[in-house]
Amino acid sequence: MDKKVVIALDAMGGDHAPVETVKGAVDAVQELDITIKLVGREDAVKAELAKYKFPKERIQIIPAAEVIGTDEVPTSAIRRKKDSSLVVGLNLVKNGEADAFASAGSTGALLTGSLLLVGRIEGVERPALGTCLPTKKGFTFLLDSGANVDCKAKYLEQFAKMGSVYVENIFGKKAPKVALVNIGAEKEKGNALTKEAYELLEVSENINFIGNIEPREIPFGEADVVVCDGFVGNTILKLSEGLARALADIVKEEITAGSYKLAAAMLKTPFKNVKKRFDADEVGGAPFIGLKSLVVKAHGSSNARSIKNAIKQCVVFSEADIVNKIKNNL
Amino acid sequence: MDKKVVIALDAMGGDHAPVETVKGAVDAVQELDITIKLVGREDAVKAELAKYKFPKERIQIIPAAEVIGTDEVPTSAIRRKKDSSLVVGLNLVKNGEADAFASAGSTGALLTGSLLLVGRIEGVERPALGTCLPTKKGFTFLLDSGANVDCKAKYLEQFAKMGSVYVENIFGKKAPKVALVNIGAEKEKGNALTKEAYELLEVSENINFIGNIEPREIPFGEADVVVCDGFVGNTILKLSEGLARALADIVKEEITAGSYKLAAAMLKTPFKNVKKRFDADEVGGAPFIGLKSLVVKAHGSSNARSIKNAIKQCVVFSEADIVNKIKNNL
Repeated sequence: MDKKVVIALDAMGGDHAPVETVKGAVDAVQELDITIKLVGREDAVKAELAKYKFPKERIQIIPAAEVIGTDEVPTSAIRRKKDSSLVVGLNLVKNGEADAFASAGSTGALLTGSLLLVGRIEGVERPALGTCLPTKKGFTFLLDSGANVDCKAKYLEQFAKMGSVYVENIFGKKAPKVALVNIGAEKEKGNALTKEAYELLEVSENINFIGNIEPREIPFGEADVVVCDGFVGNTILKLSEGLARALADIVKEEITAGSYKLAAAMLKTPFKNVKKRFDADEVGGAPFIGLKSLVVKAHGSSNARSIKNAIKQCVVFSEADIVNKIKNNL
Repeated sequence: MDKKVVIALDAMGGDHAPVETVKGAVDAVQELDITIKLVGREDAVKAELAKYKFPKERIQIIPAAEVIGTDEVPTSAIRRKKDSSLVVGLNLVKNGEADAFASAGSTGALLTGSLLLVGRIEGVERPALGTCLPTKKGFTFLLDSGANVDCKAKYLEQFAKMGSVYVENIFGKKAPKVALVNIGAEKEKGNALTKEAYELLEVSENINFIGNIEPREIPFGEADVVVCDGFVGNTILKLSEGLARALADIVKEEITAGSYKLAAAMLKTPFKNVKKRFDADEVGGAPFIGLKSLVVKAHGSSNARSIKNAIKQCVVFSEADIVNKIKNNL
């Protein structure tokens, strides 16, 4: 009989914590046979939990009196706030008291805390944030999407390997197509970093490298894994998000400007489907790949649904034993 | 009485040359009181010109027997093909026989050729490609959008200054708001380059620096000028283009999947307006800023309308005396 998966959740992290984080946890235990350790201010978490009915033995409160804000300097916040929900939660996975930790709190603090407390898999130079970017065909796994703003070519090669293992094991895609984000299709195009990374990727073992991918092609989903440094990756992620939102606004403006309300109402379903296909909440979280334990970053603006989906992702990672698979592949 | 503006146009550059380039030139001379020097293979250009009626004295053919392809290595192509439309055209502006040169040909060859033949304004470390990026509010001037893939902080400061002068003089926007593309709003966020660039921009004179802009905010148009290195800039430009296209495809797919044809037909006008607001052809060309003469890069897939608009831009630059204004501002 399998041991039940235990997920630690930062109840205090994110713009809508603890309301949405607690609700997400409650929804998750109603859907999945798991245990959740809710880390945060006991009174606040209790008050939220009191709103719902759920199997009580499945949610446990782990008290943590402090909260790390998104405006705090990561390193000093981690060192100083030992009783913060983030530090307490990371220690739970570190000590084997949870199989994974998810947080919608400060990205910087979560990344720094993960490196300091959980630590890297031996041989991994830089863990990377991986994000499922919506595309016309489904999604592309983008890494690094924001953990390492200055990268060496060697890191990008490792991102490619880790991303491949991840996509193969989590999404069951055999020999996933890996591409390097570059501003030209040809090998000799790009900046110093991408030129060097291309040389490494071309001869790298165990990955199905298909060459460069130009940013204009990314939304069409030709590659399963796309690698780049964390500055470019975060730019791609955030620009996609902003542009989709701006375009939706513009469509709304143009429709409202004329007498198109009826037609627009008729198109409610397809518009909803488009939105759903480009919705970050559907995925819920970005795994921080290359650590000794599972850590997942949920979007700062996460609602209960995205929290629930981030928890689901944690369960899948945990069951797929992704940490060991990455260890064996590097 | 003012001297008539003379624009040199690369008749052979771009995916649809010489058909669309020649048509664009004909359309331009019918709309504007200018002279165009069409540079390219005499027979091919003549054959295209024969299709149209226009004031003959306004278009002059400058023969050039060779063409530089987009797959050629820029430096050697420029050195070897002295009789290419690109080299001949650049020499026209260099020698004062034209006020500006526009080409939809190889970006790399145009940039390299411009540096080698036309040369930089004294004091300009790196000329930059500037592009009008469509936003919810209108557009943002993005530079560098692809000329310098590896940058120093000092270059970014100059891009900010040149971009400011440009937007102020070409679009009549007083004290344009300048922002640095970064993956966080706070000063201390970003990679080594953006951190250093922030320090310079903060104390830079003659610009209205408003701080960092996150990629997700760019499409909303809060800044008039956004600066970044050419790799990030090209990524922003091309991803925007690709994403808008992919989203349009997805909307079409979802509409076609159901019985929404009537409603979609009713929304033809607002959809058209949305497309127009995000249409690169409307602008037509990206100026290569910081050179001793005016050089404009038109999109490789330019049609006659975008060529005409690129020519129009050349005229505006020329009349605004933008080269001297940049010279005086550095």
